Amino acid sequence: MVEMVKNQKIWIKNTQILTMTDQPLFSGDILIEGNKVVAVGKVDEQLAQGAKIIDGKGTVAMPGLVNTHVHAPMSLLRSYADNMPLMPWLEQKIWPAEEKLTDEIVYCGTQLSIMEMMMTGTTTFAEMYDHMNAVAEAVVDSGMRAHLSRGVVIFSDEQLNKLDEGIDLYRQFHGKADDRIHVWFSAHAPYTCLPPYVEKLVEQAKLHNAGMHIHVAETLSEIEQIKANYGKTPVEHLRDLGAFDVPALAAHCVHLTDNDMDILAEKKVSVAHNIVSNMKLASGIAPVTALCQKGVNVALGTDGASSNNNMNMFKEMTTAALVHKVNTMDSTAIGAYDVLKMATVNGAKALHWQDDIGTLEVGKKADLILVDIDQPHYAPWNDTVADLVYSGQGSDVKTTIINGQIVMENRQFTTLDKEKIMFDAARFAKVLQQ
Amino acid sequence: MVEMVKNQKIWIKNTQILTMTDQPLFSGDILIEGNKVVAVGKVDEQLAQGAKIIDGKGTVAMPGLVNTHVHAPMSLLRSYADNMPLMPWLEQKIWPAEEKLTDEIVYCGTQLSIMEMMMTGTTTFAEMYDHMNAVAEAVVDSGMRAHLSRGVVIFSDEQLNKLDEGIDLYRQFHGKADDRIHVWFSAHAPYTCLPPYVEKLVEQAKLHNAGMHIHVAETLSEIEQIKANYGKTPVEHLRDLGAFDVPALAAHCVHLTDNDMDILAEKKVSVAHNIVSNMKLASGIAPVTALCQKGVNVALGTDGASSNNNMNMFKEMTTAALVHKVNTMDSTAIGAYDVLKMATVNGAKALHWQDDIGTLEVGKKADLILVDIDQPHYAPWNDTVADLVYSGQGSDVKTTIINGQIVMENRQFTTLDKEKIMFDAARFAKVLQQ
Repeated sequence: MVEMVKNQKIWIKNTQILTMTDQPLFSGDILIEGNKVVAVGKVDEQLAQGAKIIDGKGTVAMPGLVNTHVHAPMSLLRSYADNMPLMPWLEQKIWPAEEKLTDEIVYCGTQLSIMEMMMTGTTTFAEMYDHMNAVAEAVVDSGMRAHLSRGVVIFSDEQLNKLDEGIDLYRQFHGKADDRIHVWFSAHAPYTCLPPYVEKLVEQAKLHNAGMHIHVAETLSEIEQIKANYGKTPVEHLRDLGAFDVPALAAHCVHLTDNDMDILAEKKVSVAHNIVSNMKLASGIAPVTALCQKGVNVALGTDGASSNNNMNMFKEMTTAALVHKVNTMDSTAIGAYDVLKMATVNGAKALHWQDDIGTLEVGKKADLILVDIDQPHYAPWNDTVADLVYSGQGSDVKTTIINGQIVMENRQFTTLDKEKIMFDAARFAKVLQQ
Repeated sequence: MVEMVKNQKIWIKNTQILTMTDQPLFSGDILIEGNKVVAVGKVDEQLAQGAKIIDGKGTVAMPGLVNTHVHAPMSLLRSYADNMPLMPWLEQKIWPAEEKLTDEIVYCGTQLSIMEMMMTGTTTFAEMYDHMNAVAEAVVDSGMRAHLSRGVVIFSDEQLNKLDEGIDLYRQFHGKADDRIHVWFSAHAPYTCLPPYVEKLVEQAKLHNAGMHIHVAETLSEIEQIKANYGKTPVEHLRDLGAFDVPALAAHCVHLTDNDMDILAEKKVSVAHNIVSNMKLASGIAPVTALCQKGVNVALGTDGASSNNNMNMFKEMTTAALVHKVNTMDSTAIGAYDVLKMATVNGAKALHWQDDIGTLEVGKKADLILVDIDQPHYAPWNDTVADLVYSGQGSDVKTTIINGQIVMENRQFTTLDKEKIMFDAARFAKVLQQ
């Protein structure tokens, strides 16, 4: 594990501050000490002595974005076999490629995704995949914050080693790297994880005081299959298996009944809304306005780059803000600020990490980004919050700070070797497709 | 009018070339002489002597994007009064602000939009607005290519001066600035232009050998209104007024009957598909896959920044590629290359400008962009065409060349004063909202 060299203090001067605590945008300074935010708005010069100074002019400082559903290593399969229906795409292309994954390849793919996330404002991501040791190492080395789970696909006792891998991941990495890593458990999906194994995973989650990250109700064929096998919806099925008796993060939730939504609300299950992936794979559009009305916590996620094809949360924000307006034929549905909340506050809450991240406040971990709004597509700055969502691009993120560590400053990485990662990625992508 | 100082020759070396003539991406060089492309692929060193050299390494060279429906000055109203239903938004916010427009303000707003378009790869835009002299001057001075029309809203003979303004615009600017400007006529929409005036505009279009740019079937309320007044659909109504007997560009076309689509196909009317605007205003989703199947030429447009809220054609491409997949529940609907065609070839065709622009070919006008693909979100370059559409951001455009003139090189403008335009934009935005 690489030990991060931290700036003891960072003083961001003269920025526009968006705390995401329902305060409107205001001008001021920010002081970071160690891994925490110690002042927001006014900074005491005495306290700030010796700090590294960042000129915040022309930027908005806001909490780093939380990407709540990712398969990071899949960036190596970005735009590999586009425009195919879901099942042939998985069976003929994705799964055969995934069989060739090694720890080394997964480490590289994860770094590639982390790099793209840091460049586009994400400071925390929630991962579900295989070779999770390698994913975790990439997180440790990069300075990223991550919520990890071993995604378990299991149909027989012979595959129980996967459950053990999930337990090992927890033991080895939960709370590690100055608490930059949290670990949960994960049944991949109700159709890829037989009931007794879902129950075993929930048992482990309970035992470790952790939660469950699960794909739920992504496609109509899943709905049909679960109905045929169990006579229930995926949400009812998982509830009956106890999966929502622990903190739960349900990815996708595209096809829900009214009763499903009530269950999610009652059980305080958070939803990772992956709108771009759901559109690209033609899975459907999740009923996000209805979920919000029922009080369900909705966060955003990119899903893997193989079905997106990027890890850019600005694209998720713009798309979510647009699609639910036209889908409900209501131009006032889901405002810009609501979407920013989904990408920050709600994301933190979805990972049960809201005490540390999700807002820009004194006492929270210093996970924040500086967005360069001194650009034509923000002018004339009539409403910067709306501009961030509708006009903003991931590339507007100028500087990214995670856990008090500057991981990207003026678009330059401090922890990652961009050229090497891109070079390796191209090399490994060829291996996967052989 | 400013006379552009042109590089006599530009030699782009070692780039990836996407001609948009159905040739796959290939490596090579490009030579530009005067305002034309004179070599694509291999460049004769003798011919290239004395050329300015651009290192194309890590870039894709492709035709500049064609934004087929714009109200450029409205960038000053970007994110002014978001999240409102269409009619109160127009009546209480947009129209009162527009009444305060002057030539000076329109010139500034147009330059702001042109700047954003150049930064995001657009080299030609089709405009419909008021104060068109000022718009045209901004086009001339910036080096942009544009297709202009005076958008006529007219309910009585007292407003006939607007029609005269359209004629004046044609006389003063059509073919000017080394043919960078083409002028058509424009009835704003069937519900804002009474039948005799539509006919008068069509008559002028015929007389000048020009075409018509019209908003068509944007909202359900328009459909109801035209039905109530004329017992027809907007498409039938316009056809009966002869509006499609000249070259026609129909913006929006969200709500169409099967018969409407047949009319558009038969009359060779091109459609400017403004997906982001239609989503943001909750107007609906145009039946683009059906239009394409019927052989209608579909191009892309941003609409004004007041309803988008940007002028970034990369966002239009990504959104169009995604939304029609989920809207038809077919993940193979509208591929990445189809969308790139809409943004280039089809756009040129929609403006009847395909002999000069829309593809990267010897003999065509040198309107092209270099897109920086040496970035993490393109890695590992499994399919660069798909990456451009799904992962690309407008900010990836490194260099923009219009009519043989470099207007932006390495993100720096050569014809526009970015700081001044942004400063003026902020100042004028306040005036409009007073």
